[in-house]
This record gives sequence, structure tokens and C-alpha cells, in this order.
Amino acid sequence: MKKPKYQLIIDFIKEKIAKGEWAIGSPIPSQRNLAKQFEVNRSTVITALEELMAEGLLEGKAGKETVVTNNTWTLMGAKYSTNWNENVTLGIHKPSVSMVQEINQAESDTNLIQLSKGELSPEMFPLEEMKFIVQKISNQLTSFGYEEPKGNLKLRQAISDYLKVRGIEASPSSILVVSGALQALHLISIGLLKRGSTVLLEMPSYLYSLTVFESAGMELQGLAMDKEGLIIDSIYLTKEKGKNILYTIPTFHNPTGALMQEKRREKLIAYCEREQLPVIEDDVYHDLWIDNPPPKPLKAMDLYGNVLYVGSLSKTLSPGLRIGWIVGSESVINRLADLKMQSDYGSSTLSQLVAAEWLSSNFYDSHLDKVREQLRVRRKVALDALDKYLSPYATWDIPKGGLFIWVKIKPEFKVKRLFEKAFSNNILLNPGSIYAEKTGQFIRISYGYASLDEIKVGIFKLSEIIKIK
Amino acid sequence: MKKPKYQLIIDFIKEKIAKGEWAIGSPIPSQRNLAKQFEVNRSTVITALEELMAEGLLEGKAGKETVVTNNTWTLMGAKYSTNWNENVTLGIHKPSVSMVQEINQAESDTNLIQLSKGELSPEMFPLEEMKFIVQKISNQLTSFGYEEPKGNLKLRQAISDYLKVRGIEASPSSILVVSGALQALHLISIGLLKRGSTVLLEMPSYLYSLTVFESAGMELQGLAMDKEGLIIDSIYLTKEKGKNILYTIPTFHNPTGALMQEKRREKLIAYCEREQLPVIEDDVYHDLWIDNPPPKPLKAMDLYGNVLYVGSLSKTLSPGLRIGWIVGSESVINRLADLKMQSDYGSSTLSQLVAAEWLSSNFYDSHLDKVREQLRVRRKVALDALDKYLSPYATWDIPKGGLFIWVKIKPEFKVKRLFEKAFSNNILLNPGSIYAEKTGQFIRISYGYASLDEIKVGIFKLSEIIKIK
Repeated sequence: MKKPKYQLIIDFIKEKIAKGEWAIGSPIPSQRNLAKQFEVNRSTVITALEELMAEGLLEGKAGKETVVTNNTWTLMGAKYSTNWNENVTLGIHKPSVSMVQEINQAESDTNLIQLSKGELSPEMFPLEEMKFIVQKISNQLTSFGYEEPKGNLKLRQAISDYLKVRGIEASPSSILVVSGALQALHLISIGLLKRGSTVLLEMPSYLYSLTVFESAGMELQGLAMDKEGLIIDSIYLTKEKGKNILYTIPTFHNPTGALMQEKRREKLIAYCEREQLPVIEDDVYHDLWIDNPPPKPLKAMDLYGNVLYVGSLSKTLSPGLRIGWIVGSESVINRLADLKMQSDYGSSTLSQLVAAEWLSSNFYDSHLDKVREQLRVRRKVALDALDKYLSPYATWDIPKGGLFIWVKIKPEFKVKRLFEKAFSNNILLNPGSIYAEKTGQFIRISYGYASLDEIKVGIFKLSEIIKIK
Repeated sequence: MKKPKYQLIIDFIKEKIAKGEWAIGSPIPSQRNLAKQFEVNRSTVITALEELMAEGLLEGKAGKETVVTNNTWTLMGAKYSTNWNENVTLGIHKPSVSMVQEINQAESDTNLIQLSKGELSPEMFPLEEMKFIVQKISNQLTSFGYEEPKGNLKLRQAISDYLKVRGIEASPSSILVVSGALQALHLISIGLLKRGSTVLLEMPSYLYSLTVFESAGMELQGLAMDKEGLIIDSIYLTKEKGKNILYTIPTFHNPTGALMQEKRREKLIAYCEREQLPVIEDDVYHDLWIDNPPPKPLKAMDLYGNVLYVGSLSKTLSPGLRIGWIVGSESVINRLADLKMQSDYGSSTLSQLVAAEWLSSNFYDSHLDKVREQLRVRRKVALDALDKYLSPYATWDIPKGGLFIWVKIKPEFKVKRLFEKAFSNNILLNPGSIYAEKTGQFIRISYGYASLDEIKVGIFKLSEIIKIK
């Protein structure tokens, strides 16, 4: 039995849409062209299009083009559904998601000068040591299946030993291995926090550029900052106990580079204990100090298991390993481990073994020494270039560690224009607006990723762009 | 300034609770003992306890013990909040979560005869080949950072080539690398489906023992099965279009082992196209055929991008790699890739490189040949033991592949008792009740994990337990 002609047209269009060749939002060929292609009358084409419109796949208005509006999967709700998108409008800050996505995409463009990437340059990747360690692991390999819910014990032991140096006493049973700090936040957001909770956090903060907490139905409440990070007096608990939580990056804050000194850390911990305010301490930049080791983490001062401590190897060694950790009291870690199992049945055994070897050998320490040396040089190059080229147009503080300089552009220059012009000149930087509404006059410059030449040239070009106003 | 004594008691108790030494629900020492320990009057102890009760950390009733009820983190809502727990009561089937957890925990007990584990035995782990491949990878290593959102291109190309053999044409841009099939389902549930959607699926199904879809606010709707898997006529679309989705394991179904033949697959695909019912095809057992290769996947017959296809290396090579994939139309894969980045910034680079090497070398095929040989032997040993020892008490079908025999115990014997007695005799099996309410008279026996001797002894012991009624 031959199919009727209008059915052939329907099949043809459905296939184009389903295979993504005709993207959602794009116009389909004109009725005349379709009629020609299928050797039918225009009325047959119209019959087909009407059926597709009825199914919700196409939309057409009189006198306008007919466009693709859906495919079967998006009909299920991809465009509308899910916490992930719905909830980004909650909270006090609406992240400019599209700009963040644009930057994320551009970050894989190797033709750009990457002043944006919060990641160590490939130059600093310890390739020979990594080869050696992977080789060593391969020799010691035994058959491996699913790991324990909290992660490979050898790795947890290595993390426990490594954290002792920072003053954190944590037994392996109070450590959960995760696939990086973002997964840590994701698990905490879906596993520990009530919908409608308020996450108090520095303003600006890296976290505003993510949707992890908003996606889980929380609001973000910004806290005022000075050069030492969050100001304790600005904490204002609006809700009943058990519905507030503090997220903080006390060490080499992203994006400002702020470093909280010991005194304030002590006060903050005392405040949080008194108010029973639980804390998520994001400490992924700890090892990237340049001038002096930072004060001990909040977690090291935490007697009551009030702090959930998040760390990672992504900023210091390689994001490709996808290894991070959460440290907390055992009952909380048990719960998060259960959620981790429900999300992905644990992290890669190979990555865990390699990470354990890194942490328990002295490779890691000597790698960090080299990284710090390089970062010192890189920071100097960036600061010198800023002094030389941008000082008429901007101000900044000198970060004591981490990867970022937080540059305030003078109000007479438009940052949005600077970002766009820089982008069209192949320079990628992060505008302050993605970290808070109020910091629209800032840009975040990373000295961690681009080459020394690129840093110089990049900053020079920024000054050229600003000049022409 | 010295702290008042009651404050010392409060600090002491808070620390015990926070460190998890005094678990939630456990009684604290008596007032008399605390008074003795701190050398204070009982009234001082009572002052301290009253404050802790007011803070919600302890609960005490007149004449009863005082017990720990919370710590700061659980006060945040760990016990109550989160989709993950709330929603498991939705849907038609309430999984006996506690039993599943009990089984999961027991699965790491090496003293047990594991007739439960849906995983290949360590005997079948290709250790030498794995060592060789990891070594090879270590030699070829270059510096690695974050991977592309969809995963390492070399791996996606290898998956694309590998799927061609099954009749699936998928370009690398329509493939998303994930950390195993569970993560695939997790991403689909949070990223594509509307809350309140209905997931139609075989009854029984492995999925009832998870909470992945219920946690995202979906209902499960069971479909009748025969020896070929789901019966198309039993599909009943209760909701408007866009709120139903089909989840199916057409090949070596878990737990029943059912295999859908080609004719029914064609009918099913035609039905789903006609009804615009999107399909998640879980095909993780495809390569574990024993007698003959299974028919082509639904995805191979899918012209309209209606099928999201899920695969993994966990069942065939090693779960420790944490590598799986989703294949779908490009716009859907783009969306899921975005979510994957939001959850964990991608899977481990090392695991991806190792997986790519496995799939693109001929190691994988020759490994599978060996696995199939072993599974043939293992299935025979299990079936022989069943014939010899359990035929008076049970019936079963012969699976054509996969890892499981679905055994129906005659109604006069209680499966719950069998499970418990077996457990106390160091034999772990999965009772049918965790896969559906109606299948309480079944048990799932895996011939994939335990040794041949253990399989024999285990099944013999089951018969002994049943006999004594």
C-alpha cells in the first residue's frame, strides 16, 4: 500500500526535525518549494503542514513563515519543565545565563586569548609525573567493580592525611569523594537543603553564575564584602532556624580574590555556632597561595560539625581527573554518599586511584611549589601590564593567591561594550555582571591560563579598546 | 573568663553529636552519670539538657531516656526535605527502600554468596588487557583539562563506530558521554521530563528499585509483560500528549531476562511514533547474549529521533570505569550535555580515554567472546542446580542472555522468609518484591557474579531452607 503524498511530506519534515537538521525556531521551506519538491499541489502541502501544526511541531501565522516549534522530546517539556530552568528566576539575582553560556562555549576556542578561564594553563600540567603515576597505577591494578559509596578507601585516607596539614582532623568515614566541587554543591543542594531555604553568600560570588542552588529551589541572599571577604555584620537571618545556610569562599575568593584573615574566621565560626547557621566552605583555591600560606580553613576551627568542607584537585592539578571531596560529620556524609550513589554510583576508579597516588606521594607538594612559582610570575606580568596600560581607566587590588584579579573599570567606560569589543578582538574575559548585578563595572581577569605573552597583549588590547571609547 | 559548667556540658554533648559519635536516635548518658563526669549537681545537668532540647538537638520525655534527635545539618532538613525522599511515595509502586538499601550494603560483604549482584564476577575482569590499555594511555597522555560538554571526541567517535554494528547510525554530536546508565536516567529525569509526567515501564522492572524518576516528581505506571517483554496492548496513555514517556529494557530485561523479538520491536516503534510517545531504551545488557545476538535495538528502527538510547560499559567491562552514553537527536543531547556540565562538569578524562581505547581496539570484542563463554557455563551451572534442587518448589524460564534467572517460588512458600533465612545463611538474593508489588513470589538469581561453586552451594542451600518450611 502506497502512502498518500501528504503523509510523505509529513514523514520528511518529521525526520528533518527529529534529526535536528531543522532546528527549533528555524523556518521551514516555503509551501511553493515543498510542492515543487514533492510534485504535488499546494493544497496537499497545506494538509501536511496543518497536521504538523496540530501536533505542535510547527507554527505558522498568516502571511509569515512557518517555523519549527518543537520535536517529540521538547514536547515532553524540555523547554519549560525542570527545576533547572524554572527556578533561575527565583532569588535576588538573575544570572545572565545566556552570557555565561556564551563564555563557556568560547572557552573551548583555542584562537582566543583566554583571560577568563579559572583553570591552570596546560604549561603547568605535570605531564611527566602524571604519566609516571598512571603507569604505576596500571602495574598495581586489580579487578575493579563499583567502589564503596563514600569512595575508594585509599583515596579517602590520602585526603584525610592531606587535610591534617591544614589543621582539619577528618577520618576517612567523614569524607565523601565526589566528581569535583560542583558535584559537591549539587549533592548538598538536592540532599540537605529544604526548598525555600536561603543561601547566604558573598556578593559578588562565582555561585551567581551557576544555577545549582536556584535549581534546587533555594534563594540566594547576597552579603556585603570588604577586602577580607564577607562582612559578618551584614548577615541577616530572615527565616526560621533550619532554613538559612551560609556558602562562603574565605580563601582567594572567586571572583574578587579576597582573603579572610584568621580573626574574622574565628568570629565567623563563633557567629555561625551561636546562630546554628550551617556553613558550606568552598576551599578549592587553598593551595594556590603565592605570598604566604593562608590561615587555617573554617573547618579547622569547627568543633560542632557545623561546617561542610568542599575541596578539589581541579584547580591545582587537573580538572580532567574529576576528583573532589566533601568533609562533614558522619551522618551528613552518609546521607550525601547515598545521594551520590543514586546519581552516578560513585566516581571513576581510575581517577580515584590516580588521585590517591598524587596525594600520598610527594609529587603533589613539589608540583604545587612549581605552580606557585609560576603563578607569582604570572601575577606579576598581569599586574605590570595593568599598571602600564589600564591604570588610567581602572583600579584593582593585588590578590595574595588564587587565579584572579578583580578589576574595577571607571564608571565612564561601559563594561558591556568592552566585553563585546574584546570578544570580537579574540579576547575573552568575564564581566562582573555574571557574579552580581551590582558589580557591572568590574571584570575578572585570570592570570592562570593564558600564556605570559597573551596576558600582556590581552591587557594591552583592552586598553586600546577602552581608549577609543 | 571561665565558661560556666553547664556550658561545658553543652559543648561536650554538641561535639559528640556533631562528630557523629552519638548518632541521631541514640540515648545520651543518664543525668546522674553526666553529673558525676562533670562534677556538678544534677540541676546543672538539667539546665544544659534543657537548652539542648530547646535547640532541637535532644528530646526527652518524663521518665524516659533523653535521645539525640538532630544535628545542625539535619535541622536543615536532611531528614525531611528533598525530592529524593518525599517523592518515593508517589506512583503506583512503593519500593521497599529499606530492603534495597539492606541489599546494597550487604553486596560489599565478601563473606556472602552473592546471588544478587547484577555485575560480572571479578574472574571475568580482563586484568591484563586493562593494564595494557592503561599503560598505553599513560604513554599517549597529553595535558588534560575539562572535556567538551558532550565528552571526549575520541570516545564519542568510538561509541559511534561501535553502535553501527547494532544498526544505530549516530554521529558523535548526537552522543553524550555519561558516568553510567544511572546518571543517564538521572539527567533525563531532571532535564527533559515535566513534573507530574508518567513513566510507563515494564512491571516488574529494575527501575522500581531505584528512586530516580519518582525523585524528579514522576509517577511510574506498570505495563503487563509476557516472555517477550512488555505487551503493547497494555499501554494506556492517561495524560495529555507530552506527559507520557516509555522506559523499556527490551533486551535481557532486568529482572525477568525477557527478550523482545524483532516483530514486536517494530510494532512498538510504530505505536510510539503514531502516539508521539517518546522512548527511553535501556540497552546495557545487549552484549551479554549467550545463544544468539539479540534483534536490533529500537533505536536502530527509529526514524524520528523518538528514542533516547542508553548504553554503558558497566555490565560488560567494568562498573569502575563509570562510562556510559546517551544517544538521541542533537537538540536533546545538547540540552542533556548542558545539564551534565551543571551536575559534574563531565566524566573523568582518564576513564574516557581508557574506554575509547577499549572500544576502538579489538580487545573489547575478544573480551566479550570470553564473557559469553563464561556466562554460558555459569547459566548452565545455575540451571542444573535449579533443576536438581529447586524444581519441586519453583519454576523459571531460561534466559537467552544477560545475568539473571527470574524464579517463581510456589505460593505455599514465603519468599520473605526465604530471603531472610538465606541471608542469615550468608546467601544474598533479590526478592521480587523490590521490582513490583505483584512479583512477591519471585526471586532474582544472578549467575554473573558468584563463583560456580557458590552458585551450586547457594541454590542447594535455598532448597534446604525452603524444605524446612
